[in-house]
Amino acid sequence: MTLYSTADCAHMGRALQLAARGTYTAHPNPMVGCVLVRDGNVVGEGWHEKAGEAHAEINALQAAGDMASGATAYVTLEPCAHTGKTPPCADALVDAGVSKVIVAMQDPFDRVAGRGVAQLREAGIATEVGLMQAAAESLNEGFVSRITRGRPCVRLKIAASLDGAIAMSSGESQWITGPEARHDVQKLRARSGAVMTGIGTVLADDPSLNVRAPELDTGGVQPLRVVLDSRLRMPGTAGMLTHPGATLVCCTGNQDATALEGAGAEVREFGAHGAVVNVFEVLAVLGEREINDVLVEAGPHLAGYLLEKDLVDELVIYQSPHIMGSNTRGMFSTPNWSTLADRRTLEIKDVRRVGTDTRITASIRN
Amino acid sequence: MTLYSTADCAHMGRALQLAARGTYTAHPNPMVGCVLVRDGNVVGEGWHEKAGEAHAEINALQAAGDMASGATAYVTLEPCAHTGKTPPCADALVDAGVSKVIVAMQDPFDRVAGRGVAQLREAGIATEVGLMQAAAESLNEGFVSRITRGRPCVRLKIAASLDGAIAMSSGESQWITGPEARHDVQKLRARSGAVMTGIGTVLADDPSLNVRAPELDTGGVQPLRVVLDSRLRMPGTAGMLTHPGATLVCCTGNQDATALEGAGAEVREFGAHGAVVNVFEVLAVLGEREINDVLVEAGPHLAGYLLEKDLVDELVIYQSPHIMGSNTRGMFSTPNWSTLADRRTLEIKDVRRVGTDTRITASIRN
Repeated sequence: MTLYSTADCAHMGRALQLAARGTYTAHPNPMVGCVLVRDGNVVGEGWHEKAGEAHAEINALQAAGDMASGATAYVTLEPCAHTGKTPPCADALVDAGVSKVIVAMQDPFDRVAGRGVAQLREAGIATEVGLMQAAAESLNEGFVSRITRGRPCVRLKIAASLDGAIAMSSGESQWITGPEARHDVQKLRARSGAVMTGIGTVLADDPSLNVRAPELDTGGVQPLRVVLDSRLRMPGTAGMLTHPGATLVCCTGNQDATALEGAGAEVREFGAHGAVVNVFEVLAVLGEREINDVLVEAGPHLAGYLLEKDLVDELVIYQSPHIMGSNTRGMFSTPNWSTLADRRTLEIKDVRRVGTDTRITASIRN
Repeated sequence: MTLYSTADCAHMGRALQLAARGTYTAHPNPMVGCVLVRDGNVVGEGWHEKAGEAHAEINALQAAGDMASGATAYVTLEPCAHTGKTPPCADALVDAGVSKVIVAMQDPFDRVAGRGVAQLREAGIATEVGLMQAAAESLNEGFVSRITRGRPCVRLKIAASLDGAIAMSSGESQWITGPEARHDVQKLRARSGAVMTGIGTVLADDPSLNVRAPELDTGGVQPLRVVLDSRLRMPGTAGMLTHPGATLVCCTGNQDATALEGAGAEVREFGAHGAVVNVFEVLAVLGEREINDVLVEAGPHLAGYLLEKDLVDELVIYQSPHIMGSNTRGMFSTPNWSTLADRRTLEIKDVRRVGTDTRITASIRN
């Protein structure tokens, strides 16, 4: 095992920070950051901003100029060895005379994993892999999911009271959480390639599911809106169809899509799982469409279904400081769970105050 | 408004710390701490350990001996001016030649409030009131409640999953929270003069409701166990009747108490509120019995009833990192709440990890 110095950790930490600047713009590409250090001084920094534009390493090399020669490069993801939309970064690092490369994580794509590192080593550059690997993997969880599992990372967002209610029995629910929490959801949308909901939510709330906070710069891109609507009940007058960005409505069987298509939606047929759309198929299609992260904003039926099928990778709960009592709707509908053994155990990753609400971020322990 | 120095705050903070040493033993008396400072040096510390034993001021004066002369006394509660089980502390401070007294809060009992301070001032001692008053009042919330409202502070403890479930629909619930949370509940019991539950919980779980953690030294005193049991369904074989300490069973109407009384319980008749015991009356009786704090460990019916009647002063929720789904029982049964306007808003006072669970302490904002 390689031993890294405190300086190594600080530089890679900085590279991860730089990578995160691409949170709202880099996808479907991974977020990548690069720091070039010579004689203990940072001589160049770069990150990948947008697909089709320069990779992090190239930006850092450009910033460093002649100072790149003899420098150590800290890169959060293995440099590419192939020509995609841009020439290979491994070549560029070699050409610039970098003397050492430290990589946080390998390329997750099996067929290219290790190629960039091998190429660097063949060129005589000392190359290490694995510094702050967990943080790098977590940063690009969605990209890694798409590449290795063929489906996006599924992030389920729920707003509920402290006693677990998302609405009164009557449906009354606006607003359970405060404006700060609702603004925070804008950030979740902005980092996602798609926002998914169920037809029940569309019919009840007519949500727009778009990014509208002016300071969140996604380069004009809106997440794909995905509606699970097995019997195609969504009206052509749904509000989301009037906003910039595309809407995919997923139905089953033979349905008349004329009205929806006329209103600008894409309607696609999927297999059925009982009465509902086969979500596994939908997620596979989203993976094919290079969507790394799906944010699910849905009611208890879809939320419970995804949880039962172990399809939730991350749960983001905005918990308001209220007790709503028993004439309410719960967070998850799980008709098949009858004993404590059916429950799911969470790994709490982060808890923080957002306005007067508490945001709990957790993964499901399987 | 008096301006206090940083040193004043530090000394009063220390006095509050000392006061809290009486958490498990001082009740029904208030917790009180006292620090004596001369020429910037602490020359004596004391706290009130147990009713009938010396007050905080006397303990501090004893520790200081001759050094008390000319010292400043920091006391968390106004020194008493009357002879109770022990002689008045105001006299003792005067006799010891203390030159200044700083008090955190007045005595809450209207008829004596200000008397101790007046007596000190008459004796020529500079006396100030109000330093860290909110902290002092919070420390003795139960005592203040009993003295000013004639009823104890009601602390409601609930163990629930992150989605607000306290049990499966079948009743299966052992254990939702972990051993650390259950141990923490022992501390809540130890600081309470009474632990209250409903007959439903007794019949379902047969709880002991006692303090059994060996390191919690209550001086051998167990909180009074209180069972709300309108129709006197509690069996004489209930486990709690076999443990040291007293049990009060509260019923309505004319019931045959022979078996329960034979098993050692005290049975008392109260007025009825519909089908349930009038909790207001029960709390008034507990106040008469000098109980400062009642811990309620109950199911959703009693919890919801207390919440509806605005009788909950503090809510302590142990939230386990689980999703239990929809075939479950919720934290509160509130049959009369139908709109969002009925919900209660919480003031979150403290959130911390207890083992793998999260403990949320809140008051109800009225």
